[in-house]
Amino acid sequence: MSVTAARGFAASGVVAGIRRAAPDVALVRSLSPAVGGAVWTTNRVQAAPVEVSRRHLELAEPQVVVINAGVANAATGAQGVADAERTAAETARLCDLRPEEVVVLSTGVIGVPLPMDRMLAGVAAAAAALSPDGGESAATAILTTDRGPKLARASGPGFTVGGMAKGAGMIHPRLATMLAIVTTDYPLERGEPVELLREAVDASFNRISVDGECSTNDAVVLLANGAAEVARDAASDAEFGAALHAVCAALARQIVEDGEGATVLLEIRVAGAASDEEAVAVARRVATSPLVKTAAFGRDPNWGRVLAAAGSAPWNGGFARLETDRLTVAFDGAKVFEQGTPTGLTPELGGAAVTIDLDLGLGGGEAAYLASDLTYDYVRLNAEYTT
Amino acid sequence: MSVTAARGFAASGVVAGIRRAAPDVALVRSLSPAVGGAVWTTNRVQAAPVEVSRRHLELAEPQVVVINAGVANAATGAQGVADAERTAAETARLCDLRPEEVVVLSTGVIGVPLPMDRMLAGVAAAAAALSPDGGESAATAILTTDRGPKLARASGPGFTVGGMAKGAGMIHPRLATMLAIVTTDYPLERGEPVELLREAVDASFNRISVDGECSTNDAVVLLANGAAEVARDAASDAEFGAALHAVCAALARQIVEDGEGATVLLEIRVAGAASDEEAVAVARRVATSPLVKTAAFGRDPNWGRVLAAAGSAPWNGGFARLETDRLTVAFDGAKVFEQGTPTGLTPELGGAAVTIDLDLGLGGGEAAYLASDLTYDYVRLNAEYTT
Repeated sequence: MSVTAARGFAASGVVAGIRRAAPDVALVRSLSPAVGGAVWTTNRVQAAPVEVSRRHLELAEPQVVVINAGVANAATGAQGVADAERTAAETARLCDLRPEEVVVLSTGVIGVPLPMDRMLAGVAAAAAALSPDGGESAATAILTTDRGPKLARASGPGFTVGGMAKGAGMIHPRLATMLAIVTTDYPLERGEPVELLREAVDASFNRISVDGECSTNDAVVLLANGAAEVARDAASDAEFGAALHAVCAALARQIVEDGEGATVLLEIRVAGAASDEEAVAVARRVATSPLVKTAAFGRDPNWGRVLAAAGSAPWNGGFARLETDRLTVAFDGAKVFEQGTPTGLTPELGGAAVTIDLDLGLGGGEAAYLASDLTYDYVRLNAEYTT
Repeated sequence: MSVTAARGFAASGVVAGIRRAAPDVALVRSLSPAVGGAVWTTNRVQAAPVEVSRRHLELAEPQVVVINAGVANAATGAQGVADAERTAAETARLCDLRPEEVVVLSTGVIGVPLPMDRMLAGVAAAAAALSPDGGESAATAILTTDRGPKLARASGPGFTVGGMAKGAGMIHPRLATMLAIVTTDYPLERGEPVELLREAVDASFNRISVDGECSTNDAVVLLANGAAEVARDAASDAEFGAALHAVCAALARQIVEDGEGATVLLEIRVAGAASDEEAVAVARRVATSPLVKTAAFGRDPNWGRVLAAAGSAPWNGGFARLETDRLTVAFDGAKVFEQGTPTGLTPELGGAAVTIDLDLGLGGGEAAYLASDLTYDYVRLNAEYTT
């Protein structure tokens, strides 16, 4: 599992004292020259490490990723950028690389400067601890309000894809406070990682929602070092694509399952929309509806709230197309509303997962979304978690 | 106060047994021929009474409004439309009007049929109880999870505008589970009420958010009977417009103050946006952010969350323009972030209202938004409130 599942990668996680007494600095390094790419938050407010790492990726292929938890180094002005650059420079020095070969990621509280003495000591300790067995340590050192590490692995003929992620609150499409590092020994060419990531991220991390938020720091990074030494062809490329999608989907699902205060996993599936884009809009609107999410917490198959949300899905300056008379809604497979009329069924929602199916009866557009419920604990965590 | 503040209106509120043992059927009637108009929910799923009333307004000027609480008569298929029509017909008969002169409104649970025996008995009782002093009774009979009635009144030279509203959850721009009835004795021509309402609603009910939801039933109705017998000119029209805006703004503010589980009123003010539209988008995004709203509940001046929300305000297929280096944020007037850099200030948020100012430093676009906080009680009310 994790970022050392594929051959030729080392990782580590250490306690640097940035985030109380928990592991909070992680390194992931390819042991042979790798190619890589990243997908970043689209928030207009971007953290200093995001700014610095984007620039680095334009200059060189990434060989190592350094991550800290506890402080996001976002909205920290010019000092924040200098701190991220210094972190990259020190990591490069310790790994005998150039600074632009380093990706720097931070997650945690916004607006607080990175404590650089602790950060640099942490980077030194993490560099000394790098190990081909360090994937799980690294996965633990990137967490914030998560209940546990998120790990995934998938393989194909002769190659492996592995990954780790963090993220529990502020999770939403467009990569919100979520970090994921995926490594593979499959041979990729320059430029391929970012293209392949974009597709995989769109079908996984961009289809989950804990609270509809979008953070300033989020990133998915892919490193590919070719250590598997397999011969590529169309079939192996397809197998690699499937493995990459599987790893991203597994990490995304773990993030939602670990959503802040979550007690149930909601899977929203929309079919029959006028277009795929509208299906996504409807699924997202239902997945982010506070009323649907509180009803799920109460295990109430409240299809009225599902209808109200689905009918107000922002799309193209208005709402996605929907006709009540053609709409069918089911909870866990039981139809509660069929082509505009209630069926009278009231399914019991007992499990740890609930599926809500909407068939719009308009066309062939489809989409799925994963979401957590909205609970007392979500409010508690976010009312008490300090700036 | 309320809908009988202006001359020539009668109203009533009675217990019909649709919503347990509380008043739940209200009538508002003009005692002389009135003109009127309405602004409706834009949800793609529209309740039966909305469908029926929209049709009526195309055929005739409204003279009476009949409202029930407890059952929304939404997503109730063909039976729901027949029930709304029958309610209008019976109200018309009792008031000696044509059915198309009746506006029917419902609020409450979605997907449940209106209990017509109780509804019709309630309409009969309400018609018998109509009184020029009935404004407050009517305002009580339209409530659902509200903590109390919402009333407003404003006057100009010789005329009065009065109104009542309901709404506590599912409140958001585009008129979400919110009803408001405004009456005036100012003389208006046919077609004017809807035009004037649209402007007033855009600046009031469309700038509030409790939970970002948008319901299937919402409506703002204006009846104008000219009983004031004032001579109109540009100056009096301006006074009337101001009074109408004041009544709508007062009702909208009361709705947010009474937001489900709310403990604090947030006023989000955005200035310096590239355009007014982008200012609205940013203000709305901050006003609907679960992280900003839970922080407000915790009285935490968490400007990092404000930045993250402001930077991800959906606009024009992307996000509203914002540059961190030009952004200044203040809580209750105290600058916490100034042109891209934290000031170090941590203001105490003690009051029942908190103002968050964002100056984007990009242009002249401005907007304001009112919002409630997100609390344990919001979750409790919505996890327990049944379908």
